Amino acid sequence: MEVDQQRLRQDILETAEFGSLDVDDGYGRTVLTGSEADRVAREYLIDRLEAEGLTVRVDPVGNIAGRWTPDGVGPDVAPIAVGSHLDSVPRGGIFDGPLGVYAALEAVRTIRTADVSLDRPLEVVSFTEEEGGRFGIGTLGSSVATGLRPVADALELEDDEGWTLRERLSAIGFNGDEQIDPAEWDAWLELHIEQGTRLESSGASVGIVDAITGITNCLVTVSGNADHAGTTLMDERADALVAAADFVSRVESIASEIASEHPAAVATVGRHTVEPNVRNVVPGHVEMELDIRDVEHETMTALVDRIRAALDEVARTYSVETTIDRFRDDAPSKMSKRCVDAAAKAADSAGLETERLHSAAMHDTANVSEVTDAGLLFAPSESGFSHSPKEWTDWDDCAASTTVLTELVARLASSAI
Amino acid sequence: MEVDQQRLRQDILETAEFGSLDVDDGYGRTVLTGSEADRVAREYLIDRLEAEGLTVRVDPVGNIAGRWTPDGVGPDVAPIAVGSHLDSVPRGGIFDGPLGVYAALEAVRTIRTADVSLDRPLEVVSFTEEEGGRFGIGTLGSSVATGLRPVADALELEDDEGWTLRERLSAIGFNGDEQIDPAEWDAWLELHIEQGTRLESSGASVGIVDAITGITNCLVTVSGNADHAGTTLMDERADALVAAADFVSRVESIASEIASEHPAAVATVGRHTVEPNVRNVVPGHVEMELDIRDVEHETMTALVDRIRAALDEVARTYSVETTIDRFRDDAPSKMSKRCVDAAAKAADSAGLETERLHSAAMHDTANVSEVTDAGLLFAPSESGFSHSPKEWTDWDDCAASTTVLTELVARLASSAI
Repeated sequence: MEVDQQRLRQDILETAEFGSLDVDDGYGRTVLTGSEADRVAREYLIDRLEAEGLTVRVDPVGNIAGRWTPDGVGPDVAPIAVGSHLDSVPRGGIFDGPLGVYAALEAVRTIRTADVSLDRPLEVVSFTEEEGGRFGIGTLGSSVATGLRPVADALELEDDEGWTLRERLSAIGFNGDEQIDPAEWDAWLELHIEQGTRLESSGASVGIVDAITGITNCLVTVSGNADHAGTTLMDERADALVAAADFVSRVESIASEIASEHPAAVATVGRHTVEPNVRNVVPGHVEMELDIRDVEHETMTALVDRIRAALDEVARTYSVETTIDRFRDDAPSKMSKRCVDAAAKAADSAGLETERLHSAAMHDTANVSEVTDAGLLFAPSESGFSHSPKEWTDWDDCAASTTVLTELVARLASSAI
Repeated sequence: MEVDQQRLRQDILETAEFGSLDVDDGYGRTVLTGSEADRVAREYLIDRLEAEGLTVRVDPVGNIAGRWTPDGVGPDVAPIAVGSHLDSVPRGGIFDGPLGVYAALEAVRTIRTADVSLDRPLEVVSFTEEEGGRFGIGTLGSSVATGLRPVADALELEDDEGWTLRERLSAIGFNGDEQIDPAEWDAWLELHIEQGTRLESSGASVGIVDAITGITNCLVTVSGNADHAGTTLMDERADALVAAADFVSRVESIASEIASEHPAAVATVGRHTVEPNVRNVVPGHVEMELDIRDVEHETMTALVDRIRAALDEVARTYSVETTIDRFRDDAPSKMSKRCVDAAAKAADSAGLETERLHSAAMHDTANVSEVTDAGLLFAPSESGFSHSPKEWTDWDDCAASTTVLTELVARLASSAI
């Protein structure tokens, strides 16, 4: 089957206009949930879905699904659902999300005009607030749809201006009352940009993801004594920054050591703030936030345990007080063998080279994989740029990955292939 | 000679009312240059100086001097000047500054009523903006009076609200047109609280300072690559925080090693900011400010040289780019032998125990020591608290140190003692 690259490109470029940024190079956009840009991006999608004859539903948190039930397929047969999201981070790129949504629509268009007999309905899906750009919680829409988060809790979330998700959705007319339940889907597929350089390095135009890393976050504090930087002699100090510096070094050593056996394992001290942070005062307090990921949950826990022991050693060595709070622990998600195997066959039949990899970024697919079979494909990101107007995926790569997605959808939806 | 502890205490406590804070324990005050609190504190001082018959002058940056010329002493004889400052840091204490100003006045009062024949005038001085609490530059008034900084430059300095020093002083009526020139003083003396615990530890009620440490400041930057904390594997990173952490550890090691031979030597990374400082992003950039002090200028330079070499090593080890800019280099100040020796004799004659020490905090005396003989006495700080409402000096210690100051002033001003 051959997808229409021009049609896909037009949908992505039209969507790029909503919330578009005035940048010198490339294309950027800001599409926050419930904004005017979000409204027009959603309405454009619904127009396209309806133009293709799909039946559109909107659920209470604004997730959108458009279903096509082929002739002869019963209305209660579990569909193959395909999609991604339309929102962006502030000053984000144009492929992160929209590529997956319009590749899904393009798959349905292509399959409908091809001579393929399907046993299942197809559903094109766009989840709300995947980026957490307005309400601070990523993959929000899929977490509600899959029942991982109560609808009412999500609707009461407030943005920086004090508006709730309920109010923002109501303002753009996307507080629906229909149900979108991924547990009823036979399988779910998402195509997303890689946001890394492994595909570019390998030369493959499609990535088949076997797992999405879990994420654990820890809040670590180190407390010493804030003292005058002149009058407090070197041997009289309890310098929180000196102790924290040793801790940062130890975290890096531990993570590098573990990564030598588990290459996806990473640990990052991303946030690190010093108090009082004044040139002539010995630092009294340091607060750090750690981000720890791997495709195996036990490796993540082993990392946390060793980091905890290192922190205890720092406390003893520097006479400082330390705390550590593992405040988030999301387990890794395995993609279903059925989807991964079918994806490999789909790429083979399209004559396209693929690369097996893991995803270290979070995706709606992680939530959906909790309730049904799920698969995730990647398209190459030029130089790995992401969450930036520099984000770019070659149009040929967009088409190639959409072709594999289309073949994959057809395989899962048809016992004849 | 016996000072009047009650009179001294009353002046300090009255001054504590200006800009006073509502705190549960102790006394706090905020007296920023050109504020209403500053105006009333200055007017109270001038009232007291004039009540004692001193002739008051105010210079263009608001420095205040009150002169008493004893009978028989010519008007052109170089005076012994004594004083400190009235401003405070935000939420500061009540002894830092005012003790020195009112101890100076108390010395004049005591000497005038004692049977002492002086050869020189006495001058009580209060310098503007010693703390740098409003215009960001410490010992500002004395730097202008001593010619280290042009008057016009100082007057154009702006505070956080965009007001100039000229405007702030004009608003409270303290933009004078008289001259206060420390180069014309025969000698300068300052009594200040220690802001440390060495006197408390030794049990001495008076400290005789032999040197004020110099201060060197360096701005250090470390630049790596800000990357996604999930998709950037451990061996692909140029983590600016990991590199900076190693640098912080090295600075501490170098300073501790040098301090084992030069105990006053200190090096502090006081300001340390990480960019983008987001939990799930590998840090791309760290900016640090270092504060390096010692009583010997060469030790300070040796510290900077070793720190520079350590930074180069960090750059090589972590593949990051680094810069270091030694943007301030104030040499240490030696107190004059004449003042130090006379202070020891003054304490002896008062029967008070003293401790020789260095000052690691900056004082107006450092500027004045550039242009005339200077001496600095310390009074004990309870538990070393400073720049805080917890700052406290026992009233007996205030009186004892003022007694030594008085004996010292008399010795320097009289050939008969």
